[in-house]
Amino acid sequence: MGAELLTIGTELLLGQIIDTNASWMSQRLAEAGLDVFFKSTVGDNWGRIDAAIRLALTRADVLIMTGGLGPTEDDLTREVLAAVLDRPLRLDPDILAAIEARFMRRRIPMPENNRKQAMVPEGAEVLHNPRGTAPGLLCRADGRVLVCMPGVPSEMKPMLLEQVIPRIRDAFGIRGRIVSRVLKTCGISESMLDEKIGDYFRTMRNPSIGVLAHAGEIHIRMTCKGDDPTEIAAQLDALDAKLCERLGPLIFGRDEEKLEAAVGRLLRERRATLAVAESCTGGLVASRLTDISGSSEYFERGIVAYSAEAKQRLLGVPAETIADHGLVSVETARAMAVGVRRLAGTALGLATTGVAGPTGGTPEKPVGLVCVGLAWDGGDAAREFRLLGEREQVKYRGAQMALEMLRRHLLGIPMQEA
Amino acid sequence: MGAELLTIGTELLLGQIIDTNASWMSQRLAEAGLDVFFKSTVGDNWGRIDAAIRLALTRADVLIMTGGLGPTEDDLTREVLAAVLDRPLRLDPDILAAIEARFMRRRIPMPENNRKQAMVPEGAEVLHNPRGTAPGLLCRADGRVLVCMPGVPSEMKPMLLEQVIPRIRDAFGIRGRIVSRVLKTCGISESMLDEKIGDYFRTMRNPSIGVLAHAGEIHIRMTCKGDDPTEIAAQLDALDAKLCERLGPLIFGRDEEKLEAAVGRLLRERRATLAVAESCTGGLVASRLTDISGSSEYFERGIVAYSAEAKQRLLGVPAETIADHGLVSVETARAMAVGVRRLAGTALGLATTGVAGPTGGTPEKPVGLVCVGLAWDGGDAAREFRLLGEREQVKYRGAQMALEMLRRHLLGIPMQEA
Repeated sequence: MGAELLTIGTELLLGQIIDTNASWMSQRLAEAGLDVFFKSTVGDNWGRIDAAIRLALTRADVLIMTGGLGPTEDDLTREVLAAVLDRPLRLDPDILAAIEARFMRRRIPMPENNRKQAMVPEGAEVLHNPRGTAPGLLCRADGRVLVCMPGVPSEMKPMLLEQVIPRIRDAFGIRGRIVSRVLKTCGISESMLDEKIGDYFRTMRNPSIGVLAHAGEIHIRMTCKGDDPTEIAAQLDALDAKLCERLGPLIFGRDEEKLEAAVGRLLRERRATLAVAESCTGGLVASRLTDISGSSEYFERGIVAYSAEAKQRLLGVPAETIADHGLVSVETARAMAVGVRRLAGTALGLATTGVAGPTGGTPEKPVGLVCVGLAWDGGDAAREFRLLGEREQVKYRGAQMALEMLRRHLLGIPMQEA
Repeated sequence: MGAELLTIGTELLLGQIIDTNASWMSQRLAEAGLDVFFKSTVGDNWGRIDAAIRLALTRADVLIMTGGLGPTEDDLTREVLAAVLDRPLRLDPDILAAIEARFMRRRIPMPENNRKQAMVPEGAEVLHNPRGTAPGLLCRADGRVLVCMPGVPSEMKPMLLEQVIPRIRDAFGIRGRIVSRVLKTCGISESMLDEKIGDYFRTMRNPSIGVLAHAGEIHIRMTCKGDDPTEIAAQLDALDAKLCERLGPLIFGRDEEKLEAAVGRLLRERRATLAVAESCTGGLVASRLTDISGSSEYFERGIVAYSAEAKQRLLGVPAETIADHGLVSVETARAMAVGVRRLAGTALGLATTGVAGPTGGTPEKPVGLVCVGLAWDGGDAAREFRLLGEREQVKYRGAQMALEMLRRHLLGIPMQEA
């Protein structure tokens, strides 16, 4: 069973739009037990769309096309498909009525050229599109399935999941599927992870385990193949539990959960409030924390203390601390955390100071040195990290370390893993 | 003259990596006067790579392949290419020496399987790769040019620009090229832009003009075709000057310049210092300003005043202002700007307060309402904006409005265009 993807549009070919649909579709099709062997892109050109469809019919059981279903003259997919399959196009009155109703709701008269979106090749199944004007089409020919969908991601994605994949699985009697789950860690090295779970990911076959470093985090991807969704979920749950046994609270979240959301969840659970003082991260820690809806429950304030003056006057960092240890030092980070906690009257204070670069580095304090300080009722701590990358990456990774240090403090686990 | 792109790699086919190379290459090739008619992706599979190369030879003059040049058994591009062209692979001692030297610099012995990266099909030109171990290859066969490059973007990009494009232009005697330049505006509507420059973009053919709305900005893309780079630059300069005549300082930057960099440039020129007080943007304005290297020259501090307490105590917003007008109001924004300027002792104070959502909206103060305040020596101002989108988009667009309001103040132009 092989599938082929064909994305249609001159703007894709010219690179004016990056094609994110094809990757997303490949993943969903693989999960649904369909292997994709070819992906192609052609422009809005009759001859080349025709050639691409004919070629796919020689080598794939399923051809999934996106794009070229719009109302303009450039949009040719529907017409070329009908011609290749030698089927006449007929006006579908229900589709036309749905398109007209859509324009009526917006109080705009339907332009005449939108009529072509209601044309359907004889024998095609119509794929309903509640999010746009162009419906999708599914044709069966010589044991093959050909699908056309709109290129707009918000219209294509539900159509693929809800209408296309079930029909294809049904048509070819596919029972298997592949489900993935990602466990996320931060502040742990790949070699440390290998020591803790390497025996699993060298021996596990189904579910299998893959490890991927990604923007200051290491992700563990578990992938399970099977026929029965309940059985797959049970196998993933069992492996998840085994990995949790080994890694415990080093796992901060699953799948789409971000580190700032994991930290926010813990702060809310503990009814703890937080104030942040930032130098090298320049407001990024505060901005990430406040990306989370409901963060005003625990995030009280942030201070971006870029000048020495702001560090001393506003945060009360002693002049001697700066003189003795420098603006970038664990001592200053600690004093900033203590200072912002006192100023804001919060349960916790978190602080960063470092050299984001590209200038300002010295042999002892190179670009990428970031110090994080933390203060709580009855104590404080600070650590330094040596981070790689350009200015924006150092800021991002510094923010990661600050958030992870806070998360570990809330869970009572040490940071020495980093 | 038609070119075809073939990206090779199972991880691309499965969608685990989004292929950004193909879009970038398409753009650069179009600029260099080469039209791309097909883009395809295949996995690391001998038969399918073979078929894709043979197909391309029937329909393209230039085939550009990326990926599959690594040292592992999966990496097949070099071997399949040699087989399709029926040319033996020979070990190139210079390449081998370069790879060995690269490992020696890292003090690692060269693994035996890296030897295959030194194999070259007979008659191929070697494309030097100073940034990685795998060199690229360029073969000429029957009037066609076939190119293989590594898939790592940082290795591929300079190789395409410096070695591949000049050879292809030379091989096919291409003289034309296409050059684009983007002028960026913020806080102006598309209809306002149309009133000011619509007569140009409806009539201009070469250079042509396109308008694209993008993340709280509107970009004007000028595109010029021609043979002579000097003549092209002169035509773009002339059109640029005409658009500047109409739009003046509404244009904040060109090409890759960001709004925060344009604001930073003005602050530095005027030797003005800035402090920022943020509520709904939650540190994003500070973080964007401090993304710019050298921002410590003008950015003194930021306050993320998420709580009412922080707004009153730290920034000195009068309790009556909050009681009479609410936390989200132009009056509070103005008082925050005045307060942060006074606290920091800077030339300028900038403030935001708003409803980022998804909760917290009311009929009078809906999600997306953002108020921006500005304070300077001898005056202050505030404005409200109604912005669309999810929480992160409202934050981003709110930050855009704040930065643009500051930029216009520095240039003495009013904000009513928004």
